[in-house]
Amino acid sequence: MARVTLKMLARKLDLSVSTVSKALHNRFDINPETRERVIALATSLNYQPNLIASSLRTNKTNTIAVIIPEIANNYFNLAINGIESVAQEENYHVLIYLSHEVYNKEVAFAQLAQNRRVDGVLISVSQNTTSFNHLMELADQNIPLVYFDRVNENMNVPRVTTNDFESGYLATEHLIKQGCKKIAHLTLRKNPSIAIKRKQGYLKALKDHKIPVNRSLILHSTDDHKKDVEMVRKLLKSNNRPDGIFAAMEKMAMAGYAACSDLGLAIPGDVKIIAFSNLEIASFLNPSLSTITQPAFEMGKAAAKALFDIIKNEKNRTSNAHIVLDSQLLIRDSTK
Amino acid sequence: MARVTLKMLARKLDLSVSTVSKALHNRFDINPETRERVIALATSLNYQPNLIASSLRTNKTNTIAVIIPEIANNYFNLAINGIESVAQEENYHVLIYLSHEVYNKEVAFAQLAQNRRVDGVLISVSQNTTSFNHLMELADQNIPLVYFDRVNENMNVPRVTTNDFESGYLATEHLIKQGCKKIAHLTLRKNPSIAIKRKQGYLKALKDHKIPVNRSLILHSTDDHKKDVEMVRKLLKSNNRPDGIFAAMEKMAMAGYAACSDLGLAIPGDVKIIAFSNLEIASFLNPSLSTITQPAFEMGKAAAKALFDIIKNEKNRTSNAHIVLDSQLLIRDSTK
Repeated sequence: MARVTLKMLARKLDLSVSTVSKALHNRFDINPETRERVIALATSLNYQPNLIASSLRTNKTNTIAVIIPEIANNYFNLAINGIESVAQEENYHVLIYLSHEVYNKEVAFAQLAQNRRVDGVLISVSQNTTSFNHLMELADQNIPLVYFDRVNENMNVPRVTTNDFESGYLATEHLIKQGCKKIAHLTLRKNPSIAIKRKQGYLKALKDHKIPVNRSLILHSTDDHKKDVEMVRKLLKSNNRPDGIFAAMEKMAMAGYAACSDLGLAIPGDVKIIAFSNLEIASFLNPSLSTITQPAFEMGKAAAKALFDIIKNEKNRTSNAHIVLDSQLLIRDSTK
Repeated sequence: MARVTLKMLARKLDLSVSTVSKALHNRFDINPETRERVIALATSLNYQPNLIASSLRTNKTNTIAVIIPEIANNYFNLAINGIESVAQEENYHVLIYLSHEVYNKEVAFAQLAQNRRVDGVLISVSQNTTSFNHLMELADQNIPLVYFDRVNENMNVPRVTTNDFESGYLATEHLIKQGCKKIAHLTLRKNPSIAIKRKQGYLKALKDHKIPVNRSLILHSTDDHKKDVEMVRKLLKSNNRPDGIFAAMEKMAMAGYAACSDLGLAIPGDVKIIAFSNLEIASFLNPSLSTITQPAFEMGKAAAKALFDIIKNEKNRTSNAHIVLDSQLLIRDSTK
């Protein structure tokens, strides 16, 4: 079946292409009867407007892009649900771009968003993003941009985060209260915003409880699960063995579980573990995992709302609102 | 900063827009010196070609769409990694569309893809898709389409699946060999392809082992986790309580864990559970989960390869290859 075009409709109706186009776009300068004839034929032939061509005219694509590092993480799954709940009300499509924590992919997607003229971009940056030129260019091109979770605090655009510092403090203090004296911190690579805040919370809690900081107990993810497990194994086998682990990301907590299992160490008997995580099945783990649980759905929703506020307000596109939503400390067996 | 356009470049260089365009498109009918001047200025001003306009000319977007039901599922995460490994070699971008198991969303995405925004589509259909007109239209419009995992066997396009029938048989037989006499089957809604095959395997294993089929032991997901847990709870509290559960999807296995936990039933003591699942942390569950594990990464890779075979072969776009890759039975504690 050949594609049904405006030209084909015009030929069959013995009208000009521009008349057919006006009829389909519901323009006022067209005879109602003609419009009805055009719409009837277009419907019966299942005419699909060429949105690429029409987006050149209207400069709107009714599409927003969400650039995230990974999907094997319940936080992003829930955040996307939140984003989509808002996008649906606005009658927008959501496209998902996965950077897989690779800086170059993130740059390519930012350019793609710029070229395809999506109407807005939501982003949580990769662990390896330390330069933000690709995102500043988006803003320079007047493409609405909002950060969530992993943000850049130095750009004049809205951002949505959780209370990372306070949560890092609470998680560490919880381990101290459970009797831990030597607490390791497993965190992201290259210190994105959330890693810095969570670590600051960890350091402050140690300080307030007069526990000396031992830098060799702070480990950064390698982006490779097997290498992460090996790294944690090595720490747990050393003379420097921690009795508590605070993981800033779910994957590092799972590396802790795997390393303990390899070495025959008991959780929580030998090592207590708490982690930032939105894992739905945290309570079915062996042992069930104590977590700092982010309000992921609400964060996605707030970020999408901030984005549509900018999209709709063409006159004033400047906003640098910082929305902070609180996480929850959920104590389970891994820190008992 | 205003967007750098062809017109702006032309004005600054005192050339015509068409000369600038030819220079940037590396056309032969242009003076090499002029080309160099144009490229130097375009580079220094960070000129971004308008891909929407240029895709109207070339009719290529170097983008493929992947339509999947959900991402809170490690199968799709791994499959996407497989798809991206191939797309990267081909220098293609991958956009992800989430249907959230909603038929109307899937239809909207198929139309979006049809409006020429992508060069090809990979799809695993929603649980609620029983009509395939939206996908037949894609094929009619000559847009390359490949199914993976949840497929339609009645369309003349390639599809990649695992050996669902054999795996359903093996999972059920494993429960029988572990002593189960009354085996429930928890499966997807509205019987998509994989649900039918997995159930046929279950029924055949019961038959071969002379266990009568009890239809009240076959439960279909409601698409709502809480309702699913309640449904399984009800079954486990009834006089009809099964001693084994074979779940065709990971989420239903987790509903089984939740229901057993609510009722104080021991897994595997009171009820043994096995499920189709690519959950990376299956071995850290309490108890660790026996699984049928699909070759998800390889399935994604095979599907993407089949798609690029069609995209590259414009003359012969007809293929109905059915690629079947084998799953693995991984026995852990939940069926001991």
